[in-house]
Order: sequence, then C-alpha cells, then structure tokens
Amino acid sequence: MEDILNLRYALDTFYFLVSGALVMWMAAGFAMLEAGLVRAKNTAEILTKNVALYAIACIMYMLMGYGIMYPEGGNGVIPSFDFSFMLGGDNDPAAVLKQDAAGWYDGDYYSGMSDFFFQVVFVATAMSIVSGAVAERMKLWSFLMFAVVMTGFIYPMQGYWKWGGGFLDGLGFQDFAGSGVVHLAGASAALAGVLLLGARKGKYGPDGQIRAIPGANMPMATLGTFILWMGWFGFNGGSELILSNVGEANSVAAVFVNTNAAAAGGVVAALLTARAIFGKADLTMTLNGALAGLVAITAEPLAPSPIWATAVGIIGGVLVVFAILSLDKLKIDDPVGAISVHGVVGMWGLLAVPFSNADATFGAQLTGLLVIFGWVFAASFLVWMIIKATVGIRVSEQEEYEGVDISECGLEAYPEFVGSRGSGL
Amino acid sequence: MEDILNLRYALDTFYFLVSGALVMWMAAGFAMLEAGLVRAKNTAEILTKNVALYAIACIMYMLMGYGIMYPEGGNGVIPSFDFSFMLGGDNDPAAVLKQDAAGWYDGDYYSGMSDFFFQVVFVATAMSIVSGAVAERMKLWSFLMFAVVMTGFIYPMQGYWKWGGGFLDGLGFQDFAGSGVVHLAGASAALAGVLLLGARKGKYGPDGQIRAIPGANMPMATLGTFILWMGWFGFNGGSELILSNVGEANSVAAVFVNTNAAAAGGVVAALLTARAIFGKADLTMTLNGALAGLVAITAEPLAPSPIWATAVGIIGGVLVVFAILSLDKLKIDDPVGAISVHGVVGMWGLLAVPFSNADATFGAQLTGLLVIFGWVFAASFLVWMIIKATVGIRVSEQEEYEGVDISECGLEAYPEFVGSRGSGL
Amino acid sequence: MEDILNLRYALDTFYFLVSGALVMWMAAGFAMLEAGLVRAKNTAEILTKNVALYAIACIMYMLMGYGIMYPEGGNGVIPSFDFSFMLGGDNDPAAVLKQDAAGWYDGDYYSGMSDFFFQVVFVATAMSIVSGAVAERMKLWSFLMFAVVMTGFIYPMQGYWKWGGGFLDGLGFQDFAGSGVVHLAGASAALAGVLLLGARKGKYGPDGQIRAIPGANMPMATLGTFILWMGWFGFNGGSELILSNVGEANSVAAVFVNTNAAAAGGVVAALLTARAIFGKADLTMTLNGALAGLVAITAEPLAPSPIWATAVGIIGGVLVVFAILSLDKLKIDDPVGAISVHGVVGMWGLLAVPFSNADATFGAQLTGLLVIFGWVFAASFLVWMIIKATVGIRVSEQEEYEGVDISECGLEAYPEFVGSRGSGL
Repeated sequence: MEDILNLRYALDTFYFLVSGALVMWMAAGFAMLEAGLVRAKNTAEILTKNVALYAIACIMYMLMGYGIMYPEGGNGVIPSFDFSFMLGGDNDPAAVLKQDAAGWYDGDYYSGMSDFFFQVVFVATAMSIVSGAVAERMKLWSFLMFAVVMTGFIYPMQGYWKWGGGFLDGLGFQDFAGSGVVHLAGASAALAGVLLLGARKGKYGPDGQIRAIPGANMPMATLGTFILWMGWFGFNGGSELILSNVGEANSVAAVFVNTNAAAAGGVVAALLTARAIFGKADLTMTLNGALAGLVAITAEPLAPSPIWATAVGIIGGVLVVFAILSLDKLKIDDPVGAISVHGVVGMWGLLAVPFSNADATFGAQLTGLLVIFGWVFAASFLVWMIIKATVGIRVSEQEEYEGVDISECGLEAYPEFVGSRGSGL
Repeated sequence: MEDILNLRYALDTFYFLVSGALVMWMAAGFAMLEAGLVRAKNTAEILTKNVALYAIACIMYMLMGYGIMYPEGGNGVIPSFDFSFMLGGDNDPAAVLKQDAAGWYDGDYYSGMSDFFFQVVFVATAMSIVSGAVAERMKLWSFLMFAVVMTGFIYPMQGYWKWGGGFLDGLGFQDFAGSGVVHLAGASAALAGVLLLGARKGKYGPDGQIRAIPGANMPMATLGTFILWMGWFGFNGGSELILSNVGEANSVAAVFVNTNAAAAGGVVAALLTARAIFGKADLTMTLNGALAGLVAITAEPLAPSPIWATAVGIIGGVLVVFAILSLDKLKIDDPVGAISVHGVVGMWGLLAVPFSNADATFGAQLTGLLVIFGWVFAASFLVWMIIKATVGIRVSEQEEYEGVDISECGLEAYPEFVGSRGSGL
Repeated sequence: MEDILNLRYALDTFYFLVSGALVMWMAAGFAMLEAGLVRAKNTAEILTKNVALYAIACIMYMLMGYGIMYPEGGNGVIPSFDFSFMLGGDNDPAAVLKQDAAGWYDGDYYSGMSDFFFQVVFVATAMSIVSGAVAERMKLWSFLMFAVVMTGFIYPMQGYWKWGGGFLDGLGFQDFAGSGVVHLAGASAALAGVLLLGARKGKYGPDGQIRAIPGANMPMATLGTFILWMGWFGFNGGSELILSNVGEANSVAAVFVNTNAAAAGGVVAALLTARAIFGKADLTMTLNGALAGLVAITAEPLAPSPIWATAVGIIGGVLVVFAILSLDKLKIDDPVGAISVHGVVGMWGLLAVPFSNADATFGAQLTGLLVIFGWVFAASFLVWMIIKATVGIRVSEQEEYEGVDISECGLEAYPEFVGSRGSGL
C-alpha cells in the first residue's frame, strides 16, 4: 500500500505543479493583452507593472498572504495569522505514508509546497486584472504600493472566507476556481481605483462623446488572449485538487472540456453581438468574448454538460459587449475592459452555478458576490484613497500626454516604430 | 489491483490532458505565424479569423464532428451518427475498475472527456492550416462559413475512415498523428479555396514576374513557429495514446525525441537550401523548414531512429523550399506557404512511413493519401463554390487595396506604427 | 510489484518529458528576448540565429554531445566516446521490471530517450546565451560554425566533468541544474566571442561616453522573459530527476517554489536598484533582474527556504545591474546583458550554494567555477580565433550600419514599420 500512496502523492503533486505553471503563464497573458491594448507610449510602463506586480504578489503571499488565506485556525471571519511558510517545510514522508488509505484524500495527499505554488499564481492573476483597468494614467509606484496591500492582505482575507474554510464556505457559497474570489475580487479593486483615478484625457468629450482609443498592437493582445486561454486549463483544471483515481480524473477532464467550450461560446457570441451592433468583426470584442466565456465558467466548470458550458460562455460573451459599452456611457474608463470581463461576467459566473450544480443556491451565491465585492471594493477604495492623499495616484497632464513610458520608465517600448501617425495620440 | 487501475487511468488521462493543452496552444502558433507573414493592413483580420475558427471548431466538433469521427457503429465509409456527446457523461468508475486488468488497454483505460479534448484540438489545427493560405483577400464571414462545414463534417468523415476505424484503417494505411488526416486534409481544403479565390492583386505580374510580398512582423512569425514546435510534442507525443507502463513510456519518449529531431533537420535543410538558391539565410524559409520537418515526421514519429527522424525532416526541409517556389510558378498564391508545408510535405510524411515501419506499405499509404486528398479537395471545392455563388468569397478590389482589417474588422492591427514606407503596399 | 514499477517508470518518464518541453520552450524565450533588445535592423538575423542554433544543438548533441557527456566510461577528465545514441534504443521493459524494487532509483527507472530529450534542450539553452552577447555585428554563418563545436564538444566535455560523473563531481562540486554547467558556460563562450569581436560601432565614444542603444520591441523582450521564467520550472524542476514518491515529489515542489521566489526577488531588487541609480523603473533592468534571480537559484533550488531563495534572487538582481554597468565601463559590449546575467550571476549562484546546502564547500564551488570558466573560455577563444582567421567573424562596417538583416538574411523583420525615427540608428 505504501507504494500506491507514494505514487498517488507524486501524481497529485505533479498535477498541481503543472497546473500552477500554466497559471503562472497567465501572468504573461495579462502582460501581452494589456500591452497590446494600450497606446505605444504607455506600453513599457504596463509591461513593467505586470512583471513587478507578479513579483510583488509572490513575495507578499509568501510573507503573509498564504498564512492569512489558509490558516491553522480562525473564527471564519478573522483567521489566525501564521507567517511560518517563508521558512519552508513540507509534509513528513513517514507521517504521510502512515495515513489511513481509506481517508487518504482528507489528509496530506500532496505536497504543501505544490499547494502554495498553485495558490500564489492565483493571487497574481487577481492583481493582474487591476493593472489593465488603471492603465495609461496611473503612477507606477502608487500602483505597486497598492499591489503590496492587495496581494498581502485584501485578497487573502476574502480568500480565507471561501477557500480557507471561512464563513462564506460555511454558507454554502460555491466558487470552484474563482469567478468571485479571483476575478470579481480583481475587478472590484480595479473599479475602486478607476473611480478615484478618473478617465484618460480626451476619452470622454464635453458633450458626452466617447472617443475610441485603439490599442497599439493587436497581435500582442491576441497572443495574450491565447496565453490566458491556455493557462485557464491549469486555473480551472487544477482547482479540482485531486486527479489520482478514475472519478477524479474524469472530473478534471470534464473541467478541461467545459472550460474550452465556454471560451469558444464566448468568442462566437461576442463576434456576432459586435457584428450586430457595429456591423464588423471587432477583434477586441472577440478577444474579450473569449475571456468572458472563461471567467463565466470558472465558478462551476465541473457540473455542466459541454453544451451548457458553451451556453454559459455565450451569455458571458454577449454580456461583456454590453458591459463595455455601458461602462463607457457611465464614463468609467477601463482601457482593456477588465471590469466588464472579470467583474460583470464574474458575477454572471457566480449566479450561473445553481443552474447546473444542485448544491448551490441563488441566495448563497448572491451573498458571496456581495461580500466579495463589498469587502474588496471598500478596502481597496480606502487604500487607493490613502495613496492618493499621500503620494498621489495620477501622473501629471503633461506626462500623460507624452506617455508614461518616458516619465515612469525612462525608455520607450518601440523607439524606432512610431511614425507620424503616432504623434498627437 | 483497483488501486493500480485507478492510478493508470489517472496517469493516462492526465497525459491526454497535458498533450491536448499543448495542441490547443498550436492555435496560438498558427495565429502568430500567419499574423507575422501577412502585411500590416491584413493582420487584425487574420487574428480574428484564427480566434474564431478555433471557437467554431470546438463548437462544431462537440455538436457533430466527434460523433461522426468516433461513432458507435458504421460500415467503414458511412459512420452511424451519434450526437450525444454534447450532453456529457464519462466512463462509470465502478465499471472501469471491474474491467479485466490483463486486457486493460483494450477497454476504457482513460477518460472519454480527455479523449474529446485531445481530438477537438486536432480539428482546429486542420482548420488553422486553411486560414493562412487564403489570407489577405478572402471575406471573413465566408471563411467562417466554410469552417463550420469543414470542422463539423468534412474533416470528421475522413478522420473516421482512418482513426475511427473506417475503411482506410482496414486497408493498413498508417498515419500515427496525422500527416494525412490533419495536415494534408487542411492543405487540400486550402488548395480548393485558393484555386477558386485567385491570387492577391499584384502578386503575379503580367509577364510572369513573381513579386515577393514580405510579412510585416518576423518576430511574431518566429514565435508562432516555436509555439507550433512546442505544441507538436503534444500533437505527436499524445498520439501514442498510452503512457502508463515501461514500454509505452519508452514509446512516448521516442516520439518526443524524433519529433524534435525532424524539426531540427528541417531547419538546417531549409536554411542551407535557401542559401544555395538565394545566397542568404532566408528566415521565412527556415521557419517553414522547421514546420516541414514536423509535418514530415507526424505520420510515423515512433519507429525511426533519431538519425532517420532527422533525415525525414531534412528531406521535408528541402522539399518545402522547392514546393513554395513551384507553387509560385504555378501562380497558386499561398501567402504563408501552408499548402507546401502541410500538403506537399504531408504527402512526403505519409510515403516515408514504410521506410521505418514494416507494417506499412507504399500501396496503402498512397491509397490513403489519394483518398484524403480526393475527398477533402472535392468536398471543400463544392462548399467553396456554393459560398462563392451565394455570398461571394473575395473582398472588393478597393477593400483588398486598403486592407481587409478596415473592411472586415473595422480596426487596425498597428494603428500607430505604419510609417510612410507602409503606404502603397 | 511489476504494476507499481511500470507506473513509477511511466510517471518519472512523463515528468522528464514535460520538463523537457518546458526547457525547449526557453529557446523561444531567448529568441524573443534578444529580438526585443536589438534594433529593428538586426532582428531577423537574431531570430534566424536562434532558430538555427537550436536545430544545430539538437543535431550535434544527438551525433556526439550526448555520448561525450554521459559516456559508458572515462577517466573523469576524458570520457570514452560513444556515438550510438543516434541509432536509438531504450531500456528493455522486461529487464527494467526485473530490477530490484529496493534499489530501483539506482537503476533504469525512466526512459533513456526522455533523458536525452531533457539533456538536449539544456545544451541549446547554453548556446542561446551566446547568441545575444554577439548580436548586431557578428557574421551569421561564423556564429553557426561556432555553435557546431560548442554544442558538439565544448559544452559536453565540462558537462561530463560534473553531471556525467567526472572529476568535478568527484570533488564535491555542487550544481543542481546548471548555474555553472549551463549558464556560466554559455556566458564564458560569449565573453570569448565578444572580446574578439569588439563593440558595436558607436557604442563607446572616443572620450569614454557610453551610448545607450535601446531595443526595438519591449513587449517582445518582456514576453521572452516570461517564457524563460516559465521554462525554468522545467529546467530546475526537472533536474531533481525523480518525482515518484512522497519525498521526491516534495523536493520537486520545493524547487518550483524556490525558483519562482528567486525570480520574484530578482525583479524587485533590480527594479529598486535601477530606481536608485537612474530614478526610473527601467524595464530592461527589471527583466534582467528576473533572469538574474533565476540564474542565481539554479545551482541550488532545493535546499533553501522560500525566504532564503528570495534573498538569493535579490542579491542576483542587485548584482546584475552593477555587472551590466561595469561591463560597459570595461567597453565589453553585450547588447542584451547575457554575460552579466548568466556569467556574473551564475558565479554568484555557485558560491551561494554552501549557505544552504551543507554538502557544498566554497573550495569545491570555486574550483568548479574556475574549471568551467577556464575550459569554456579557453576552448571557445581558440575556436573563435580560428573562425576569425579563416572566414572572419565580423560583418563589414557598411553591413553593420545598414543592419545585418539585409546582408545576412536578405529580408527585414518589420518592413512596414520603421518610420523616420528609425533612420540613422
């Protein structure tokens, strides 16, 4: 039996590590997506921001976040704080192998280090969502300060409430891989920042006109979307948390199929919706449709049949187009559509769960949604406020006009490319 | 024994899922390759096409393709149609574990959902091949209509004939991972489209001159090639279909080594061939050499020794250079060389099998080659004809001149970059 | 027991193959990083170089390198040369299963083909390091000649001394995944080439000024960094060489966590160091910080706690900024910072091992460092000398001014993009 347990443990650990590597890859996806959707003059800064926020997330989550989110104890609202992870240590092999084979999956059935690795890339994902929404006008260092608090404290707290076994979990709130805990959380922090930051200069005219500000590099944005799509197999697929028997392997496979199906549904829906509205095959909307399908299915990628998963994505794909247009009408300026994709569609994902999973109720889903939004929005608003009041959050008008690449990074993303058409943008 | 069977099932399922994720990643590879090889003004459209075709392939294969290709029954030519996959369901764990351990690998030894996931990304690959060949002048919506029929019907039919256990399989036709079923099939559909579509304006002069139309973004094209190379480890490596014992693990490893060796051979061969002809290290030809090596080995990546796998790739790499030059002489305009890479070299791959695999015969390989080409070309030609006769397949001369990005997508891929040198191209 | 051994073998083989695919992916990372950091006019050539060197590495290592590095015999300095790998063959399943289960991990516990696959991508990594340092002025074909010798002979010799069980291994020199064997080796070959090649025209002014020559495409450089970061999970994670039991699975997981932590530390350190020096968030330095963290932890990613791994990366990140500035003062022109990242920080990585691993001594680490540097530098210098004396290594001044893309590849990387600002660079 020890031989079997060794193999199970190794296989489930490997499954976590491979899944985690795929989620880490999503950091590249967000970086490329956002770099493609901003203007050339703000590209180096957003790249810097994406690399730096990932690094900050990894350090802060190691130092405090992981201990907050998965504590040894706590009362369901306030976790017991335990900051020992940074010193290492993992399950003792002898103790692992002494565990009862029957109750195996309730015990330490995979490496604690692999668990951290899988979790840490999730917090980076949540933080990446913020980055795009505040693009082209926020001060880099102010953003990074916020990242420290978000990844070290705000995110882990609500993560504890659900995945760490806190009160939302006790209420029956269902969120398989984080339509709420990750995506809605990221979007809520983004919204708070955007409201305090204001729109980019020239985005909204004095008479209510909305000016389209096209992204500088569509292949990059498309690449970013494909990277995110691929990484999502780790994001959702790894969230089953067990692989090593027939039933669980089937579940992981179903999650892969449904994740892919929802993204496909989102693409087709956004493509057709955009065509109906604009008369053209809007690439940006199509990419957001893919992401919307992925966000929508993330709360429950296991229970649906493939056709229902496709439908969940289709609804997400339609929704995201209208959400983006509506936010613009409200003059909430989100250069990459992150609040719509991760926030609005994240909510849809949470509310879609009861349609396929009998364990979920609309009441519990709505409660979870409101708690996550309320906590993250309020806490983030406070932090953004403090930063605004002290070091400021917005670059000067002149810096915004010239592009934040020069003012924040001291270099240009494409020093040789921008021709005469780039001037004045 | 149940414990062993659980682990085997989980490991083989995981192997399928990881392989499938790598093949899905090839969709990004084709998108980047094609986006890099077209002109700036047609880039957003080809990106849209690639995202959308992948989504359509996933939906159509779920709805019908999978049921056609892997039916419960059929007479070897016409499958019994079964469209129940969309409703989900997988192997019953209890029934799986009751199977005889001795005949294990003849039964349900891995998740059916993982099988679908691995198969669906193959049909997307075949469809991606078409996209590049018809670039820069085809109507987007007409292309997407074709994609519906190709992925839902044309591809699955011939897939059934070989991999679904149909008459080509009965004849002894060998095609390990699809030099024929995927690559030649995609190229045949592309050829039919290109013949009906005609060459890009200005590609061939009135006196037989051939004008080189350089791609706008070589790093993107190179990235696409690397993505495809990586994804091919899933494409060929996963096609062994079993991993979970010594012999099979050895086989999967041999497939990885040989796939890599053939690509390397293709690179060196195309590089030197291009140097001999043009006197320079032509990057585009080098990239096509890598892909040619990969396509060539795909029909039989298991039986060869590493040195023979390299040779198969070398021949593919030489062949692809001459194929590209020859197609241009025939005024068959294929902006990315897809017909040469996947069609001509796909044929070479099929015919190379008997050199290393004693189970293969040239007769059966030739039969398979002709059947696949004949069916896909004829069926595709008919569908393209119908689309041409109804909604049309070619954009207007003015739209082609201005670029299909504006007319089809309403946006530009690089709105700030194209300088004065871009005008008039 | 046979069932268990089959599963162990399959799982460990799969772990090697997945890791190898991730390391192969690093080839794309180097290509993108370097393509982003050179000027537009030299981009197609560096892409060609990267694709071609990977192919050459695969072929040369198959033909000779693998047999030199992992020979059947040898005296610790000179290996017995065995070139039979190219003919294929793997462990006999029956013999494998007859092995004693107790001493299992000392025998043939995974596929020999998977071992080759994992090893061959390492030699390509070492060679990729050279490519960036000699960018923008070296003759392409001369570089490829060097690649043949480096990957077929120079690298495998020192690889044998450590990983093949040669005299450095006997001395107790520790190098888990190759801060020395791979990264320092690559940097040493690069340094020899750069010294013989000289700086790019205009890089250093007559009065000691150092002119910054910005890279043309920062999103590409950032993408390359993310790719390398991801691939490093295979690079370090696979170097544990065993996964299939509790203790080993824990080790692999610890390696993943520490590898990530060091990279994160490197990012933050380089970001802050650059800010202190330049007053801005220099993206290029930040990217080099990530790579420095990764290189630094590579010699010992298992023993450290996460917080110490972060510290190792932090020191690497500080070091790389000063190394880059110092090399410029010495007029050693390395366009991408490869010698600093892989050489200087590789040395730090080797010397950091004794701080966390009690089996290591500073004496042995220093010996290993000097032997690797001495051998690779001297052998490379000789080979570069011979190439210089025969076909030459540097393009003409006119070719350098116009860019090596035209002279070496006969095409441009971005034919439509370079606007008026590009001229004269």
